[in-house]
Amino acid sequence: MFSAQTYVERRQALAHRMEGRGLVVLPGNGESPINYPNNAYRFRQDSTFLYYFGLDVPGLVGVLDTDTGEATLFGDDFTVDDIIWMGPQPKIAELAVKVGVTKSAPIARLETTIAEATARGRAIHIMKPYRGETRLMLERIVPDAFLAPSEALIMAAVAQRDKKSAEEIAEIEKACAIGYKMHTLAMSMCRPGVREQDIAGAIEGVALREGWGTSFHSIVSQHGETLHNHSHAGTLQEGRLLLVDAGAEANSNYCSDFTRTTPVSGKFTTKQKEIYDIVLAANNHAIKVSGPGVRYVDVHLSSARVIVEGLHGLGLVMGDIDAAVAAGVHALFMPHGLGHQMGLDVHDMENYGEQYVGYNAETPRSTDPACSTCRMGRRLEPGMVVTVEPGLYFVPELIAKWRAEKRATEFVNYDRVETYLDFGGIRLEDDMLVTETGTRLLGKRLPITTEEVEAATAASLG
Amino acid sequence: MFSAQTYVERRQALAHRMEGRGLVVLPGNGESPINYPNNAYRFRQDSTFLYYFGLDVPGLVGVLDTDTGEATLFGDDFTVDDIIWMGPQPKIAELAVKVGVTKSAPIARLETTIAEATARGRAIHIMKPYRGETRLMLERIVPDAFLAPSEALIMAAVAQRDKKSAEEIAEIEKACAIGYKMHTLAMSMCRPGVREQDIAGAIEGVALREGWGTSFHSIVSQHGETLHNHSHAGTLQEGRLLLVDAGAEANSNYCSDFTRTTPVSGKFTTKQKEIYDIVLAANNHAIKVSGPGVRYVDVHLSSARVIVEGLHGLGLVMGDIDAAVAAGVHALFMPHGLGHQMGLDVHDMENYGEQYVGYNAETPRSTDPACSTCRMGRRLEPGMVVTVEPGLYFVPELIAKWRAEKRATEFVNYDRVETYLDFGGIRLEDDMLVTETGTRLLGKRLPITTEEVEAATAASLG
Repeated sequence: MFSAQTYVERRQALAHRMEGRGLVVLPGNGESPINYPNNAYRFRQDSTFLYYFGLDVPGLVGVLDTDTGEATLFGDDFTVDDIIWMGPQPKIAELAVKVGVTKSAPIARLETTIAEATARGRAIHIMKPYRGETRLMLERIVPDAFLAPSEALIMAAVAQRDKKSAEEIAEIEKACAIGYKMHTLAMSMCRPGVREQDIAGAIEGVALREGWGTSFHSIVSQHGETLHNHSHAGTLQEGRLLLVDAGAEANSNYCSDFTRTTPVSGKFTTKQKEIYDIVLAANNHAIKVSGPGVRYVDVHLSSARVIVEGLHGLGLVMGDIDAAVAAGVHALFMPHGLGHQMGLDVHDMENYGEQYVGYNAETPRSTDPACSTCRMGRRLEPGMVVTVEPGLYFVPELIAKWRAEKRATEFVNYDRVETYLDFGGIRLEDDMLVTETGTRLLGKRLPITTEEVEAATAASLG
Repeated sequence: MFSAQTYVERRQALAHRMEGRGLVVLPGNGESPINYPNNAYRFRQDSTFLYYFGLDVPGLVGVLDTDTGEATLFGDDFTVDDIIWMGPQPKIAELAVKVGVTKSAPIARLETTIAEATARGRAIHIMKPYRGETRLMLERIVPDAFLAPSEALIMAAVAQRDKKSAEEIAEIEKACAIGYKMHTLAMSMCRPGVREQDIAGAIEGVALREGWGTSFHSIVSQHGETLHNHSHAGTLQEGRLLLVDAGAEANSNYCSDFTRTTPVSGKFTTKQKEIYDIVLAANNHAIKVSGPGVRYVDVHLSSARVIVEGLHGLGLVMGDIDAAVAAGVHALFMPHGLGHQMGLDVHDMENYGEQYVGYNAETPRSTDPACSTCRMGRRLEPGMVVTVEPGLYFVPELIAKWRAEKRATEFVNYDRVETYLDFGGIRLEDDMLVTETGTRLLGKRLPITTEEVEAATAASLG
């Protein structure tokens, strides 16, 4: 948690942007049951609530009056009987003070507060709920007219949250330091016969020891080409590549997100190294051309050009390189965008909607196949944190689909591409801060050249 | 997952018990969002669905027709586009076959199936939902008249699930083996200066490497007297006791649950050993007197008598021991029950309601302070798995409350008790199977005598 002043200033800025628009209602998260009501997953506070009200405690709701700038914290104090089982617990009013809020009230008062405001013709602004429990609560107390997510609130929150302060960057760097330990541990465990679950469990243990836990369900797979792959059922085999896409949350819930791809046998084959070095070049190129004022969709395309050029060199792509990029040929090999914003969420503010976070009026979402897969397209600004994660995959089902549809036959040498059907995939992901003058990678850079990665594997460590 | 025949037999038995009562609707769990819709906690299937339909896959609903015995699996197949990102995926009909179900249908058909049944005057039976998403779904498709949990369904499910089969016991023993590794690792890390979070993270890493993860949020605390204590914020200090209450789920989701209490400095003090040995005696006594046909509330009271007797020996309790137990004096020192059933849930079937799982018509829940805290009171039967977890705590707030209320002043030597206010708490928990002839502890028994525990700590390991 930051100082009370930080939260006061954040709420003041929000009230200012929303001035005269009524009440902003920000529900914190409750407990999330696993298999019965009293057995809950590790509590994770809602990121918007954390940003404006800072308290990592379940069952709270923050309300901001945009006319007066006054904030109220709603929550219920523990009973004496609760305290016997839980030990001494702070009162809601004491929690409120920690984040500079002077007014607090029991949860039951929230309903009347909202009813009174709407009776006086004032509007209610909420974010879209992503948990069933929050949705049930909002549907009960917020009039139907105000149940749609508030675009004004979303745009105000994005404008604040997408520029990270120095204290936020320091927290993200803590998460990056945990990510460094996780990935180097994974590399050091990487050898034939080890189960993917062994590595996934070991690195998640690191995330739990050092911070809140993983920032998302780790991808630890020899099927790097399967982008939505959450299985850890495989056992590492000689000659394969292990893709690990994993990050941590610091105890403050700020996130990191890194991907590395490691040869199970400790050495890349020539064929693997050729592809790997193309992805590495695309990663380094993206970092080099990024900076304040640059549109991220242009970085994506520029990085995609490096990939297409590399594949051209290997004879997998034919014809004019710029024309191939313009036709979106890279989407066959990298069917995802270059990156996303990162902060209190690993995909920062993804619950607000991509059109507000990754795009804006100046840079709307494109339907062009060359850049339609990007989560983030808009101009970079100082203080933004984005991931840089080019990849190169051979997805048998996608290759078959394109070939069947005769897509880009003038650019793709399908016969040659099909000699890579058992290749898998490679992705290399770093976390980048946009500065006033350029960019800076966050955290110590993980081993990334083939030599560095080979030196970090189990085979090399003996 | 067990064989298809196992699930066929379980459903047949359920249909038989519920014969002629209409449709049983068992929703599996969906994904549970952490901080935005696409970032979910580790998927955990609903235990009732797992028991009858066995599939560890989100988004399914099982329906059993109690007249015909016919089961239907509702779920949606992945699209070709999904499969490009997820790799080859089984069809719902293929999943159904794995658990002996021959009929399957898209989720959209569930609503009409229920509507058709109720139109023909048939009843719908559901369990009480514990997740907001499930509740929203059921409220949408099940008529109000059938939204209350079905007592007939609950009682039928309890009658099946509370007797574990040999293949279930084998899975619980896998979970116990993981728990053994977790607890011995915790003991080996226990020394001054180590953070509770270090130990909690390390043992959770073991649970994730070896199985699904922890069966509940681990208690790793020097405040053992705080029963509902989920904080891992402390740093281990010389002279304190560390209480670790933690268990694992095997990949099949069968659970274990153990508690051990370890001296941070590697050696129990005389005062600590005196209390510890009382708890150990209560644990061993409870295991000895348990067996088929014995009411667990009687085991609780018999074990409580060992604790009161021990405290009498130390001068903390005065007067007649049996009268003190009858007056519920042990509830000051052990304000919880002796144990609970364990299986696919660590508190097995807790979502069904304690009155059905821990009690029954023969043994209803007691309001007598001597046994009102028990989750489980009814007669043990062969195949049941229960935890045995006596404890002895000095809860300052509870002692102050009793003293202020002048409770049991003829039995409690409050002045003496107050010399233990900084003691903390001790709990020792094992997992026990009730056999045809007696009981058997599940898993290799963790170090439990003071000598065994001391030998397993960091101090002794160097």
